[in-house]
Amino acid sequence: MNLSTSMDGQLNHHLLPATPETVHWGFFSRSLKPVLSVASGDFVTIETLTHHAYDDHARMIQGDTGAESVFRWTKDEKAVDRRGAGPLDASIHGRGAGEGFGVHICTGPIFVRDAEPGDVLEVRILDVRPRPCRNPAFSGRAFGSNAAAWWGFHYNDLLTEPKPREVITIYEIDAAQSQNWARAVYNYRWVPQTDPFGVTHRVIDYPGVPVDHALVEKKHGILNGVRIPIRPHFGVMALAPKEAEFVDSVPPGYFGGNVDNWRIGKGAVMYYPIAVPGALFSVGDPHASQGDSELCGTAIECSLTGTFQLALHKQHHLAGTPLAGLDYPLLETSDEWVVHGFSFANYLAELGNNAQTEIFVRSSLDAAMRDAFRKMRHFLMATKGLTEDEAISLMSVAVDFGVTQVVDANWGVHAILKKAIFAGDTR
Amino acid sequence: MNLSTSMDGQLNHHLLPATPETVHWGFFSRSLKPVLSVASGDFVTIETLTHHAYDDHARMIQGDTGAESVFRWTKDEKAVDRRGAGPLDASIHGRGAGEGFGVHICTGPIFVRDAEPGDVLEVRILDVRPRPCRNPAFSGRAFGSNAAAWWGFHYNDLLTEPKPREVITIYEIDAAQSQNWARAVYNYRWVPQTDPFGVTHRVIDYPGVPVDHALVEKKHGILNGVRIPIRPHFGVMALAPKEAEFVDSVPPGYFGGNVDNWRIGKGAVMYYPIAVPGALFSVGDPHASQGDSELCGTAIECSLTGTFQLALHKQHHLAGTPLAGLDYPLLETSDEWVVHGFSFANYLAELGNNAQTEIFVRSSLDAAMRDAFRKMRHFLMATKGLTEDEAISLMSVAVDFGVTQVVDANWGVHAILKKAIFAGDTR
Repeated sequence: MNLSTSMDGQLNHHLLPATPETVHWGFFSRSLKPVLSVASGDFVTIETLTHHAYDDHARMIQGDTGAESVFRWTKDEKAVDRRGAGPLDASIHGRGAGEGFGVHICTGPIFVRDAEPGDVLEVRILDVRPRPCRNPAFSGRAFGSNAAAWWGFHYNDLLTEPKPREVITIYEIDAAQSQNWARAVYNYRWVPQTDPFGVTHRVIDYPGVPVDHALVEKKHGILNGVRIPIRPHFGVMALAPKEAEFVDSVPPGYFGGNVDNWRIGKGAVMYYPIAVPGALFSVGDPHASQGDSELCGTAIECSLTGTFQLALHKQHHLAGTPLAGLDYPLLETSDEWVVHGFSFANYLAELGNNAQTEIFVRSSLDAAMRDAFRKMRHFLMATKGLTEDEAISLMSVAVDFGVTQVVDANWGVHAILKKAIFAGDTR
Repeated sequence: MNLSTSMDGQLNHHLLPATPETVHWGFFSRSLKPVLSVASGDFVTIETLTHHAYDDHARMIQGDTGAESVFRWTKDEKAVDRRGAGPLDASIHGRGAGEGFGVHICTGPIFVRDAEPGDVLEVRILDVRPRPCRNPAFSGRAFGSNAAAWWGFHYNDLLTEPKPREVITIYEIDAAQSQNWARAVYNYRWVPQTDPFGVTHRVIDYPGVPVDHALVEKKHGILNGVRIPIRPHFGVMALAPKEAEFVDSVPPGYFGGNVDNWRIGKGAVMYYPIAVPGALFSVGDPHASQGDSELCGTAIECSLTGTFQLALHKQHHLAGTPLAGLDYPLLETSDEWVVHGFSFANYLAELGNNAQTEIFVRSSLDAAMRDAFRKMRHFLMATKGLTEDEAISLMSVAVDFGVTQVVDANWGVHAILKKAIFAGDTR
């Protein structure tokens, strides 16, 4: 499907809605058929849906034809069958097709014409808007879900009973964005939910399972008066990795993916090394807000629509630019450069045949810190022409390292370099 | 020595200069004789000296009577003999008295009248000023040293020869603070230095060793045009721990110490649990600037003078306040609350008889992240009255976790909570 309205030789603005035909759920693949083909410089407006929308059907799906079409799941029909990189026959864990090994609804992939391995794709995020609720009962608002789930950093370290437990908190934001904060509406403890195919999910082990609100006990009046600053961004922006046919969408890596840095929002620019022909760019996991660490396993998971411009940088033009030798996702904002370190820079290549299971038990912030150090050193030496000694001293006195996330299997530490440091550089 | 000009019943402003009699070097001790006694509410202006001043004697010591008196070391006389918590007879490593097990020049300790174990000391940082160079050749300027040293995160992970190496970079700042940035002046590689007592230091293994500039090769024109934003702060602010007689000044802990968070500067307020009678407050390790992680082992180590107000909170008044149950160093700025997690919250108690050596091989950011999570959860539940589920969701969507340092043996992760989140709380 190509929704392009392109005319040769001009920049074009494409629209990519989220439908069962334009999304892939829980995985990346070099073999996916592109849903759109664009030229370098083209604009694309992309709808993205949160995979947590069924935590509150009335607020996040009902009345929204796009969301309804993607989440449709009856005993006879499942609009998007594969959810995850696992087997389709659900033989291993019986969770369902794809096994939930990967959870994010991703819109795409988009084929970038002339993109080849070794090139770099620049993704400019021009605008990010919340997806308004289409249920008239909640007009003017948008909603998101925060799941404190079994993969969270807190899960086996709770103080209060019952232990362990998973808790869903529903947040509300102003769809018109005239308020820059979110507030909590209510929360509930996850109880076993039986999906339309008859599989019971005792924990949140498969994405998009309909939550029967008759079974849960809602607690209102929570986080009274608390205003969460909104930071709308995309948790997942990915190019297709080359190393495997089906790649779980959870662990981030050199190809981007589930980086989960809240700075990847409006005005930000991301650069990714291209691994496969056409780059195969996808977007998903929209967030209204997240803190550095994404502690409990998720952000405020909230459907968003973004407008992007994609620009291709050919390999033979990279020398002498900040993109030379780029082998990781690089973020540029108006004020900062941010490099992303992971426990394993390329876990698919480093961890062998069982990489996609090993990564879930091998991560450490210490290794992610090591990787972020090496990447920032590379950036300073390659981009700014510093010696290693200059780069190391500068990092110690002026670069801030932070915890991106500790919940996405391949844990992340990012390093922030302020551009103003070089304001006096007149070379 | 008591420099107080106090009159009974009034708030007083004391002056505590740095002299051989008012500093202790490289250790904390519950047994140190106080150099000043103050009442709750008193003001104190405290001079602090960087232990790296001898990296450039001409710029950081020469002409400065206070610094000259503290650093004085000839073959016949060493003004401050003990440097570190090690043995005085230097039998173990032959480095010198105290063995350099602990490196920071600390001014103090200050006895706070009526302070008892279980109380909390509040330290308000009212002003921080660089210590101007007293050498007429460098009038109007102040200087600091950054040592990329063997305890740095980078040390065994260098790209370029010679490997490994230690590198000193000298930075200059405007003593009048009309410029808010530092610039690099030159750097040099550490070469073996023989101290006045005849001990040769092949690496930076003892603080305050005079560096013979005839032996080093200075490289000028480094970090050309780079402006380091200054963030003047105190790396070390400590109360005396109760667990041991002599405590190495390097690993931070529940008593504060070498926390190395650049946010502990002008306008900040720190709260510490008091472990010994009189609290015994000391300040040292002054920094002109540092990045989160302090990657190479040090900041811009630069002598500073601070003005502080000390306020005592008695244990029986803590219930229902943000200080109830406080068992870690807590930072408040105008906009934020910051809790400090460490690999070991109280390594002196947790690691047994060999705690002070074990801590150097047992640290991990993963454990520090765990500790920071638990402390922020405690803060939110105790101070803001949140349930555990509310606290955990809030942490995931709005609290930022960062890497404080990876070079001080007991590694640090801090968690930042913005006060504005509660602006709508009208309870």
